[in-house]
Amino acid sequence: MQLLRNKVIAEGIVLSNKVLKVDSFLNHQMDPVLMKEVGKEFTRRFKDEAITRVLTIESSGIAPGIMTALELDVPLIFARKQKSLTLKHDIYVEKVFSFTKQETNEITVAKKFIDPNDRVLIIDDFLANGEAAFGLARIVEQAGAKVVGIGIVIEKSFQPGRQLLLDAGYRVESLVRVAALENETVTFVEEDSSEA
Amino acid sequence: MQLLRNKVIAEGIVLSNKVLKVDSFLNHQMDPVLMKEVGKEFTRRFKDEAITRVLTIESSGIAPGIMTALELDVPLIFARKQKSLTLKHDIYVEKVFSFTKQETNEITVAKKFIDPNDRVLIIDDFLANGEAAFGLARIVEQAGAKVVGIGIVIEKSFQPGRQLLLDAGYRVESLVRVAALENETVTFVEEDSSEA
Repeated sequence: MQLLRNKVIAEGIVLSNKVLKVDSFLNHQMDPVLMKEVGKEFTRRFKDEAITRVLTIESSGIAPGIMTALELDVPLIFARKQKSLTLKHDIYVEKVFSFTKQETNEITVAKKFIDPNDRVLIIDDFLANGEAAFGLARIVEQAGAKVVGIGIVIEKSFQPGRQLLLDAGYRVESLVRVAALENETVTFVEEDSSEA
Repeated sequence: MQLLRNKVIAEGIVLSNKVLKVDSFLNHQMDPVLMKEVGKEFTRRFKDEAITRVLTIESSGIAPGIMTALELDVPLIFARKQKSLTLKHDIYVEKVFSFTKQETNEITVAKKFIDPNDRVLIIDDFLANGEAAFGLARIVEQAGAKVVGIGIVIEKSFQPGRQLLLDAGYRVESLVRVAALENETVTFVEEDSSEA
């Protein structure tokens, strides 16, 4: 997605060879016009999947998630993150390890919002090790529903998440794929250049 | 806002005489079409205010915030909530007490995203005691910028937040004003009925 790639080039800050800071348009300040285009692009890619719900995780997944849900005309659910939790019978819970923060969070979704007939599109802002995406997918599967795909705004393709998700049988669509963050420069996976 | 009031009547669950649960359309599952209409209505009410930025707080403020920012064609910033924090020179920090959770969080915004010329619209999902709205307003004022108004999706008018904000000189626009939650029934402040 060229618009998004241009934004990464213009405003992304390479903090280390693993960390790309995009807080001016994606995860602290947000560009609503860009988010709308992100929603349109996910919809274009997944439009034949008869999606019934979009699932994301707080907080940075909510803006791309709501714009995608609007285009698809289905509800958005966002999973909540908590440090720990007393077990409840009316929520699905999965553990998600954050490599960045070196901590495990529990993510939760109320059972009433996913049913076995649902065809769910998972959306998140970043894909690195795939922990969050796997946690969300396990929640969908706990509900007996179908994960039709995983839509990622920015994928760090030099980390293992994408391959792990593909190996597990999921369809992954990333709008921008970052090949490397060496020498304070962002380089992209080249297949991107042929896309919208 | 009649559409929103109808949704509260149809799907809101009165958990106690203080707690209204709206997790099917506002703060866990979200209705994107309703969120878009919320954004349009805030824009209609504040369109003459020459707004340059919308400020909200994670997580439930993000969806109404991004839709309002889209309509106004300005960036959205969401403040982050944290338990506590080592002081940093590049962020604004304010303490916000949650009566619901009986705990104090620190909310933070990167300094680079608000400048003294900004005219900021604050958006939040709920108004009860006004703690979050005041915290966001203090951050805007730390930056030397102007709070042009506070837009609330659902106001619990039987709690003191609205009056405290008005007394402090802020303009408050709430799309639905709940007068009481007695006998498991939602009653509304009647001025609502004349609005869009």
